[in-house]
Amino acid sequence: MFFASDNWTGASAKVMQALAHVAASPPQAAYGQDEHTARATHLVREVFEAPDAQVFFLASGTAANAMALAHITPPWGGVFCHREAHINGSECGAAEFYGGLKLIGLPGIGAKLTHETLDEAVGRLRIGDAHSSQPGTLSITNLTECGLVYDAGEVAELSAVARRHGMAVHMDGARFANAVASLNQTPANLTWRAGVDVLSLGATKNGALIAEALVVFDPARASGLGYRRMRAGHLISKHRVIAAQFEAWLGDGHWLDLARHANAMAAKLAEGFAKAGVALAWTPAGNEVFPALTPEQDARLKAAGALYYPWPAAEPAHPLPAGTTVMRFVTSFQTSEEEVAGMLRAIA
Amino acid sequence: MFFASDNWTGASAKVMQALAHVAASPPQAAYGQDEHTARATHLVREVFEAPDAQVFFLASGTAANAMALAHITPPWGGVFCHREAHINGSECGAAEFYGGLKLIGLPGIGAKLTHETLDEAVGRLRIGDAHSSQPGTLSITNLTECGLVYDAGEVAELSAVARRHGMAVHMDGARFANAVASLNQTPANLTWRAGVDVLSLGATKNGALIAEALVVFDPARASGLGYRRMRAGHLISKHRVIAAQFEAWLGDGHWLDLARHANAMAAKLAEGFAKAGVALAWTPAGNEVFPALTPEQDARLKAAGALYYPWPAAEPAHPLPAGTTVMRFVTSFQTSEEEVAGMLRAIA
Amino acid sequence: MFFASDNWTGASAKVMQALAHVAASPPQAAYGQDEHTARATHLVREVFEAPDAQVFFLASGTAANAMALAHITPPWGGVFCHREAHINGSECGAAEFYGGLKLIGLPGIGAKLTHETLDEAVGRLRIGDAHSSQPGTLSITNLTECGLVYDAGEVAELSAVARRHGMAVHMDGARFANAVASLNQTPANLTWRAGVDVLSLGATKNGALIAEALVVFDPARASGLGYRRMRAGHLISKHRVIAAQFEAWLGDGHWLDLARHANAMAAKLAEGFAKAGVALAWTPAGNEVFPALTPEQDARLKAAGALYYPWPAAEPAHPLPAGTTVMRFVTSFQTSEEEVAGMLRAIA
Amino acid sequence: MFFASDNWTGASAKVMQALAHVAASPPQAAYGQDEHTARATHLVREVFEAPDAQVFFLASGTAANAMALAHITPPWGGVFCHREAHINGSECGAAEFYGGLKLIGLPGIGAKLTHETLDEAVGRLRIGDAHSSQPGTLSITNLTECGLVYDAGEVAELSAVARRHGMAVHMDGARFANAVASLNQTPANLTWRAGVDVLSLGATKNGALIAEALVVFDPARASGLGYRRMRAGHLISKHRVIAAQFEAWLGDGHWLDLARHANAMAAKLAEGFAKAGVALAWTPAGNEVFPALTPEQDARLKAAGALYYPWPAAEPAHPLPAGTTVMRFVTSFQTSEEEVAGMLRAIA
Repeated sequence: MFFASDNWTGASAKVMQALAHVAASPPQAAYGQDEHTARATHLVREVFEAPDAQVFFLASGTAANAMALAHITPPWGGVFCHREAHINGSECGAAEFYGGLKLIGLPGIGAKLTHETLDEAVGRLRIGDAHSSQPGTLSITNLTECGLVYDAGEVAELSAVARRHGMAVHMDGARFANAVASLNQTPANLTWRAGVDVLSLGATKNGALIAEALVVFDPARASGLGYRRMRAGHLISKHRVIAAQFEAWLGDGHWLDLARHANAMAAKLAEGFAKAGVALAWTPAGNEVFPALTPEQDARLKAAGALYYPWPAAEPAHPLPAGTTVMRFVTSFQTSEEEVAGMLRAIA
Repeated sequence: MFFASDNWTGASAKVMQALAHVAASPPQAAYGQDEHTARATHLVREVFEAPDAQVFFLASGTAANAMALAHITPPWGGVFCHREAHINGSECGAAEFYGGLKLIGLPGIGAKLTHETLDEAVGRLRIGDAHSSQPGTLSITNLTECGLVYDAGEVAELSAVARRHGMAVHMDGARFANAVASLNQTPANLTWRAGVDVLSLGATKNGALIAEALVVFDPARASGLGYRRMRAGHLISKHRVIAAQFEAWLGDGHWLDLARHANAMAAKLAEGFAKAGVALAWTPAGNEVFPALTPEQDARLKAAGALYYPWPAAEPAHPLPAGTTVMRFVTSFQTSEEEVAGMLRAIA
Repeated sequence: MFFASDNWTGASAKVMQALAHVAASPPQAAYGQDEHTARATHLVREVFEAPDAQVFFLASGTAANAMALAHITPPWGGVFCHREAHINGSECGAAEFYGGLKLIGLPGIGAKLTHETLDEAVGRLRIGDAHSSQPGTLSITNLTECGLVYDAGEVAELSAVARRHGMAVHMDGARFANAVASLNQTPANLTWRAGVDVLSLGATKNGALIAEALVVFDPARASGLGYRRMRAGHLISKHRVIAAQFEAWLGDGHWLDLARHANAMAAKLAEGFAKAGVALAWTPAGNEVFPALTPEQDARLKAAGALYYPWPAAEPAHPLPAGTTVMRFVTSFQTSEEEVAGMLRAIA
Repeated sequence: MFFASDNWTGASAKVMQALAHVAASPPQAAYGQDEHTARATHLVREVFEAPDAQVFFLASGTAANAMALAHITPPWGGVFCHREAHINGSECGAAEFYGGLKLIGLPGIGAKLTHETLDEAVGRLRIGDAHSSQPGTLSITNLTECGLVYDAGEVAELSAVARRHGMAVHMDGARFANAVASLNQTPANLTWRAGVDVLSLGATKNGALIAEALVVFDPARASGLGYRRMRAGHLISKHRVIAAQFEAWLGDGHWLDLARHANAMAAKLAEGFAKAGVALAWTPAGNEVFPALTPEQDARLKAAGALYYPWPAAEPAHPLPAGTTVMRFVTSFQTSEEEVAGMLRAIA
């Protein structure tokens, strides 16, 4: 019963088949001059209804985030994000390294920003004063680090604030597939139509092995990014290995099938916790569930073979019962009905 | 008849099998806490007779090089390398980005440095003068960019000069397997026993899909490198995907089998060129052959279906016939006897 | 009646005389090889009872801070400071630029940190987890940005926490002279004896024109700093121009005479505000006074010719009267008794 | 008899008077909001016939160079300069630190580039190939490091090559005053009219104490540079101290008077060497003379009290007599007729 992380999974059969095919094929041009890259790029554009989008395939989501932020933010631009955002607390200073950037972490329940909080924070900068960071970029994560979702309207409201202050907008979409599957809103509506300039699109957590992409919706913003990727050591030489994974992942809605399964498993888990009277820190929207467990419950679940970790819940949606600890349960495309059934029995 | 680059190849069957196994296995810890990483690390240490070596698996050779140089060189340390070294001319300023480093490119036939050239160049720095770069790191490439090899004695001579000036030693081993296979000297003798502090060990060009490693022989030099890797976006989340490739690649001498095949194919090619009276810019030691072709020969080989590219030969071993252009032919584990036979017919 | 900033002042007569002497003297070696640099270095060591201290003269306090932080903190080390610290909010990302560092801003009344707050914050880092910033450096400002002072005991308590977590300690001493004059504790007791590793020592605000120094108490920590200074463009060529100012400033206790005057003027101002029933955001310790003025009082003081600016008081020592705005009044060595008298009349 | 460096000098009486005036004046706004900065900016614009030029006053020429290069060059842009350029060999990697830039050093007699050499070197880059640095910036030094001068036509020819390759043009004008005085061509003709985008304008070596400026002729190129200056720690707080020096220096042609004197003294020295049969490595154009001395001559001059240093002459204008060493003699505004007369006697 693995609920530790969607990073612990393998690849979907379809993705693996594509990889095996690439590995056994005749030689093909390196560094992205191959047909898989062309097709995967085309697919991304199609899925996002963005025929001019520039797509950069990568091996790491942290690289995608840091490279995006460094590319669209001037060195003196502040990057506004939730204080619990992955870029702020879990990338060991990647944006600081890539761009010498200052991240400005803001509060918000469930790692989710509100446009009022953002507006107020940007308003505190001294515009035009050389001593002060200037408005740079807004970075939001969808799903958030606490498994919540921004719908298209919320993204648009935040982007509008950013735009009013002359800022660019980045979305960390490590679990973007889960957000799309959860909302039933189109990828385009959740991104560029709502003001997002650059998306870190993660496939790794949801069926691929090593496959991330940076999608730059306005091609002008991508100018030079290929060189930045190279000098960061992130132009993968056997580039088609990444591209082929994306090809299989995005083709025929496979990515959303995988995400829907993961989300459904999480929903069942959440239901099980609710039935058992366990409070959840936040109402789950995707593939993450955050129950507040008593030591006794924790011991019982672990005895039943469940694997999961505590999650510091700085800003829960409501006060949690005393003596409990918030735990994170992550489901994935690989989570089986059996694992969930086992959990439900253990919770009950 | 693919001789364009060893980067164009797929994976060896053994490596691919290992990958498929990983993809279909139950979830395992991310970020290197898995058993494949443990085993691959163990294998590297065994192969290099270096039980304390610290090993960092990566997705890119450029990342390995730049991270190594930034980690072992103070920002004000000059990095001495051949002027045609990959780090100097083909990484778009990666060492400059990672470490703010100044590379000092030196001449040398076949992209190979001599210890005299190195000694003289380091001697030109003004030691202790804040205006001048200080002795930092020597970086050599084995195989060199022109397919030549440094044997253990040559590495030791260069390292001795570096050491005398207080410098660290880095080896770019993108084709280290081919060097080992060519020399029949042990990995340990070619590296740490000859004074190398850090090795960029490439598997990608020789049978893996995406698999590079940084091997730090003195563990003290590796302190903090894990954090540097993370903030560079180079800690691959499904880390076992890289590690499993290394496991298969290094196990049972598979890496050297693959390299020996590639080298043998190159030797046959070279023999064919020689028989046909085609001058080679340098006597090949590994899996690269650099014939100086006339336009007529070039046309003939291309007509026969050979794929290869010109290579600017700044410092050939001897004057080349007028009217010829030096071309690079790269063989690989995937090069078939049939391809070589076809080439030999076309050359003759 | 100038109370806008101590940055607005000129030079003390003694400092200016020294400068004029240098300007008219025969040529002397550049880049710090001159006798003024030798004497000023000697004086710093004497004043701090630190015969081995390494001293780097600079033209800017921001440079001193950023260079210090980048030199003593590994790139992945978090820098803990007050969230209103100059390095965090008023240097436009200098530490981020110089070291790719992440600053972690903490709360505290009057821009002053407590050791409990620090301990708790460092404790939140995940030690050894590559995703998390690691304990790096504690940076405190003395006087704080709100004119408060850390005494030797408080510095020692904070340093002890830092040390326990393996962190270095930096002190931003832009107004260190005012702190020393206020506390009547020795420079040594306030710095290295209390655990400070590196001090940014500012003379500019207190009688010099352009004169800052980085004092590194443990010479081992200064290794290479001269090169870092050079490549940052901060090795001033006519180095004696800075050094001669320090020579005059530190000699015969001139720096403390100047600071005592500034502090005394501030104390008189504070007394005047108190008598007039004006609340102060914090009890002043040095040369800065922060009254909470009503619009009427503000208008009256400005009509009387006083020059000063509002100061956002995020964390006042106690609730301030509704309808008031906190203003910052800075006194200096140049503040005259007449200016203060004029103010007292205007306040009353 | 001081000929060691123009960095060893003090200030001209006029500059010093201006400084003393500032030091004793009533407080004025810091950070460049003062009237001296306004007037000095106006003067720079007037002298350069460039009413829209953006001017950034600085304390260091290295800072001016590195900041300029980082601001106008994308990180992946190569910076072409003479291999003996100050930015390449005497700034300890400043451009590498500020911009992560790769400098590409080119040959040329007397540290002077030809447009043919430049064109050929830029032509060797692989345009659009992510592995290769891309055309970035041309940086030339006027006077060159060997005391030669580029006239307006030569600057224009070089700039034209740069422009044709899409590159920006930077001029290191540490001794720009000497170049202007030598050529009798206008500052405008030598810079923006000849294609220069940014000029590092040095006053320090020629009569000021600490006074450098970055002059950006096209205001669009200066966008954000004020923030870059701040985060580099190069916004001098008592900004008028720098500005007042420039005011005095540029006013009434004082800067050219000073430079003409220095140049004239150098011409006399050169004449003396010629008369004595001493070969010069290059024909001097400004305030630097490079005689090739025999050990006997060297001993004689030193015995007479002359102070100067050897200068490695990589590319002399013509072969130099065996057994001689090239020495650098630098004259300045402070060089007296007596010193020169003494030298002429000693040489003869």
